[in-house]
Amino acid sequence: MILFLKLDASEKDVEKVKEKVASLGCTPHLIYGTEKLAIALTGPTTSLDEEEFLLLDSVQEVLRISKKYKLVSREAKNEDSIIKIDGLEIGGDNLTVIAGPCSIESRQQLFDIAGSLKEMGIRLFRAGAYKPRTSPYAFQGLKEKGLEYLADIKKELGMLIVTEAKDTETLGLVAEVSDIVQIGARNMQNFSLLEKAGCIEKPVLLKRGLSASIEDLLMSAEYILAQGNFDVILCERGIRTFETYTRNTLDLNAVPVIKKLSHLPVFVDPSHGIGIWDKVPAMSMGAVACGADGLIIEVHNKPNEALSDGFQSLTPKNFEKVLSKLSQLAPIVDKKFVRGFEVKSC
Amino acid sequence: MILFLKLDASEKDVEKVKEKVASLGCTPHLIYGTEKLAIALTGPTTSLDEEEFLLLDSVQEVLRISKKYKLVSREAKNEDSIIKIDGLEIGGDNLTVIAGPCSIESRQQLFDIAGSLKEMGIRLFRAGAYKPRTSPYAFQGLKEKGLEYLADIKKELGMLIVTEAKDTETLGLVAEVSDIVQIGARNMQNFSLLEKAGCIEKPVLLKRGLSASIEDLLMSAEYILAQGNFDVILCERGIRTFETYTRNTLDLNAVPVIKKLSHLPVFVDPSHGIGIWDKVPAMSMGAVACGADGLIIEVHNKPNEALSDGFQSLTPKNFEKVLSKLSQLAPIVDKKFVRGFEVKSC
Amino acid sequence: MILFLKLDASEKDVEKVKEKVASLGCTPHLIYGTEKLAIALTGPTTSLDEEEFLLLDSVQEVLRISKKYKLVSREAKNEDSIIKIDGLEIGGDNLTVIAGPCSIESRQQLFDIAGSLKEMGIRLFRAGAYKPRTSPYAFQGLKEKGLEYLADIKKELGMLIVTEAKDTETLGLVAEVSDIVQIGARNMQNFSLLEKAGCIEKPVLLKRGLSASIEDLLMSAEYILAQGNFDVILCERGIRTFETYTRNTLDLNAVPVIKKLSHLPVFVDPSHGIGIWDKVPAMSMGAVACGADGLIIEVHNKPNEALSDGFQSLTPKNFEKVLSKLSQLAPIVDKKFVRGFEVKSC
Amino acid sequence: MILFLKLDASEKDVEKVKEKVASLGCTPHLIYGTEKLAIALTGPTTSLDEEEFLLLDSVQEVLRISKKYKLVSREAKNEDSIIKIDGLEIGGDNLTVIAGPCSIESRQQLFDIAGSLKEMGIRLFRAGAYKPRTSPYAFQGLKEKGLEYLADIKKELGMLIVTEAKDTETLGLVAEVSDIVQIGARNMQNFSLLEKAGCIEKPVLLKRGLSASIEDLLMSAEYILAQGNFDVILCERGIRTFETYTRNTLDLNAVPVIKKLSHLPVFVDPSHGIGIWDKVPAMSMGAVACGADGLIIEVHNKPNEALSDGFQSLTPKNFEKVLSKLSQLAPIVDKKFVRGFEVKSC
Repeated sequence: MILFLKLDASEKDVEKVKEKVASLGCTPHLIYGTEKLAIALTGPTTSLDEEEFLLLDSVQEVLRISKKYKLVSREAKNEDSIIKIDGLEIGGDNLTVIAGPCSIESRQQLFDIAGSLKEMGIRLFRAGAYKPRTSPYAFQGLKEKGLEYLADIKKELGMLIVTEAKDTETLGLVAEVSDIVQIGARNMQNFSLLEKAGCIEKPVLLKRGLSASIEDLLMSAEYILAQGNFDVILCERGIRTFETYTRNTLDLNAVPVIKKLSHLPVFVDPSHGIGIWDKVPAMSMGAVACGADGLIIEVHNKPNEALSDGFQSLTPKNFEKVLSKLSQLAPIVDKKFVRGFEVKSC
Repeated sequence: MILFLKLDASEKDVEKVKEKVASLGCTPHLIYGTEKLAIALTGPTTSLDEEEFLLLDSVQEVLRISKKYKLVSREAKNEDSIIKIDGLEIGGDNLTVIAGPCSIESRQQLFDIAGSLKEMGIRLFRAGAYKPRTSPYAFQGLKEKGLEYLADIKKELGMLIVTEAKDTETLGLVAEVSDIVQIGARNMQNFSLLEKAGCIEKPVLLKRGLSASIEDLLMSAEYILAQGNFDVILCERGIRTFETYTRNTLDLNAVPVIKKLSHLPVFVDPSHGIGIWDKVPAMSMGAVACGADGLIIEVHNKPNEALSDGFQSLTPKNFEKVLSKLSQLAPIVDKKFVRGFEVKSC
Repeated sequence: MILFLKLDASEKDVEKVKEKVASLGCTPHLIYGTEKLAIALTGPTTSLDEEEFLLLDSVQEVLRISKKYKLVSREAKNEDSIIKIDGLEIGGDNLTVIAGPCSIESRQQLFDIAGSLKEMGIRLFRAGAYKPRTSPYAFQGLKEKGLEYLADIKKELGMLIVTEAKDTETLGLVAEVSDIVQIGARNMQNFSLLEKAGCIEKPVLLKRGLSASIEDLLMSAEYILAQGNFDVILCERGIRTFETYTRNTLDLNAVPVIKKLSHLPVFVDPSHGIGIWDKVPAMSMGAVACGADGLIIEVHNKPNEALSDGFQSLTPKNFEKVLSKLSQLAPIVDKKFVRGFEVKSC
Repeated sequence: MILFLKLDASEKDVEKVKEKVASLGCTPHLIYGTEKLAIALTGPTTSLDEEEFLLLDSVQEVLRISKKYKLVSREAKNEDSIIKIDGLEIGGDNLTVIAGPCSIESRQQLFDIAGSLKEMGIRLFRAGAYKPRTSPYAFQGLKEKGLEYLADIKKELGMLIVTEAKDTETLGLVAEVSDIVQIGARNMQNFSLLEKAGCIEKPVLLKRGLSASIEDLLMSAEYILAQGNFDVILCERGIRTFETYTRNTLDLNAVPVIKKLSHLPVFVDPSHGIGIWDKVPAMSMGAVACGADGLIIEVHNKPNEALSDGFQSLTPKNFEKVLSKLSQLAPIVDKKFVRGFEVKSC
């Protein structure tokens, strides 16, 4: 951390700053410029707050050198983290695809879609039991009944379950049924939920918030790791910008940026990221070409009857075409596209 | 709601759309243009989802005419809502100022600041016991101990308490101590928390999320009203944009916009809205001149020792100057600036 | 400027950096931290580019201490700049209001509106002869014919003219007729136009671009001052954000921020800033309460027949109400609201 | 276009609206809902302005059905436009790569880089003679001298030249030397420049503005086509958002969106789009996987000595690796990666 003072700061002011620095266990180093005086701090600066210094009258600006996050960073762990679930490996040179409907609507619907996906070799099945919705009057999910159906899918089809925990109250129930617990974009800074997610023994897929910077996302992941759960997947799903043609602006820049900063696997959700089904295949390819470790894609057997997000869901048939293209793309970006089941028909 | 089809949509397609509309209890009305065929829907369209129609092959675009929110709207209640707390009135032609430190640091700090504020006639005292922080390593508040101090402030000084509930677990405790329960920007779409806040018997101050549209904010308030709690104050506190000089971009446009759409009182938080203490007075004046019903301002007796947000906090002395200016401004915008206590010294 | 290197940078790397610094006429100062090595630069650093250093293998980060702009800054000139036009003073403790229609539609329309405004004491009259429009098929202004009408207004009514120069080709013509030349938001970084505007002998009102940061705006003003024209008025007119309810997001934070950084007068355009006529009065009051030196407001005698921007224009009657409120507000924010003519009827 | 009125609009109001509609050559169609009255317009609505109706007291909302742009749309021309330059084809199923330094620094530098690129088979060479810079004190390009060097490159190496025209004054000179004239992001709404670019006989590469919506970009292209120049390439180069880690937010969503709306070729500039050289290869791959017709990439032989944009430039060696990956990727997305020259060494 470096503090900048006016060159004409009084000796007393400088002393005050030096004392403050020392009181926080750090060492001040003075350096005089032509316009300003800089005081560089060494020592345990990571936990310092810029604002602690900004209030000293003489300090004009504070610049931080060290990163605020630790456990999620490549500095803490250089090699890629690999998350293992029942023989399946996520991260590293593996390309993983999670698929399924936005929300659980009925037992039949769930088995129909899951059955199609299993035939295509997809083992990670997503479907929402609890749905956070902007409107209190919109469909909020089948809740516990939905979880039951998911448990059946797991038991009868051998699929692995990815489903969202929308609050601390239901996190326990969700964690019991699911193999990966999803935390949604609107909950990315629900710190109480993050802390509890850090205490469960299931991997967490953490979605980037609509206005969260990359650093914010990493800090939220840090909350989970800080509680002892190191199995976190980060997921880019589009940010909110001025562009209104698409539902969100998928920020694929985030993929290579996070891959460099952190050892955690990075997934992309092209369905929410663009929000228009016929453009989801293009964005799926783009995400993997940028270096994503996986995708989470909405698939629905009857998109035009879906209770939510039908407009951004692929039919199984269109989804299969994406998988086929991804199989060709994977080796070019040095990935192994391993599905969890053997592919029955192609 | 109006659906747009290609003019060359087959008769069968049009029939399909008409059936779907009818199945949802609405009536379809056809109108032929030179490029497109429009089907206008009448009936209970408020609960319909645009996406239900977008999936029909022939439907190209869906436009909504009715608003999605009801209870918060001027259509539901035309006159301004006035919230009454122990003789104090918020909303209507009242101008109200809430003040206090960002977080509770000690009993002494709290009483020092509250004492100064009481002398200035401020009765609504804000201070955070539970602090949602971006970093897991930052100060998270004194929690229950903080609530205790707030209870003491209330008892000994007669002040009314405004403090944040950061999760459903602690909402009950917070509601017990506080006169207004604050829900923070990062929790604006924590729907479980909103629903529970709709069941308590205390007014709620709901802050706009960093990337929440005005409609999103109204929908979140709708969650609270839908549960039966009609005492909601909306609070503009800055949105996230590309501008980095200021902490947030205070969107004062939101004030006259919301005042027209909704009967609920609208407050502004200039401290977070600009994030630089010496510019908080200017933005306080601006907010009230735009029509805000109240302000929530951070005041700290020793900003340079504050554990959080010191950089945006006013000293009691500077705050007093703001109050004096607000007193002059209020009548010009047809407001009564009533403080909760008589002003002792000025 | 400070460069940050890894602590394990080789001696050779460090030497290379020091040489580069010296070759640019600056002096390097080394300071060792626990994680990084910082090299502070003193000397003529303002003209340096951060990127020149980022390419050296060992340099991880570059931080700038000095500002990039000079002439527009308070460091260059501490007291407020006051622009004088035919006895009228803009800036300092003066509150100035510019008003008129978006575009010139006919001689009659122009004289009708100007006449009404003159009666209210408004001397600075705005109206566009050249209109930059998003669509090539939209009304592009009366061009030279419009300038003629403006010249007539000036001659016959004694008003001062504010009108937009949309390109270098017509800047000369525009500058001849007008007393203040306006440069529009979409041209804020049309550097060729800025340079030429720096060579004319008329004041320039420079509008902030839709995605321009405050620093960008100041840099664009710097282009004009650097050519010798110091009479520049900066104008906040709304930025582009995710909020779609309003036409733009008026960033009133920019007012106190720029007032502190620069000596130039700061105006606000509430008409474009919110884009909805019935909310323009609220935002006008807000802007002045935040410290703006002036306003530029769209007024049209028949908004529903206007060829452009009718939806955000006030009628003369509604505008008069705003003026009356501004007269009351001005003294509270230590401004003198001086109109250019005596007010005939109020 | 559809207008919405309150159901209780008086008969007189409705008549007024119908007259206005008729006066504009359109036909009004009334449709009564439960909450509102809709009036659908048929006829020549494309040139209508929403605002013309919003001012009628009774009209609450206006919705547009037809698009504002015509010539650039797939409706006007369904098949992909292919631009032919001296035997080279751009658009359709061709994948094209433009490369070169940000700015021309010297004859030697230019020939060194162009020589390396020619060996890799790159025929479209980019380099800036006129550089629009945020700061008036930054390097503004070699100007005419730079154009001379480019002419030499063309003559001696047989390369095709892509260079930026920054104003109408120099457009003629630039068009003479170049095979594709580039219009930069900050000039995307410099309508005078667009109009003149519509009159030259060279293809134009039009970059998306920092805060331009996809529709804005298409409207700006419409300006060029409307003047008779149909050879326009659209270029996504990153928009401005709240994310500060990257220079811009590359909006790859724009690629499939524009490909569907328009017949014009779509390029991507990953160098400006992310702004960090070591992540340019990832974003290049992502762009092509999303369906881009081409890329424009900054390449510099000595990035650490570059006078501008060195930090985002690839060395020829790193660029060659990208080309090799693109060759593998192209067939998977049904593109032919044809370079303009035969590849000499690989």
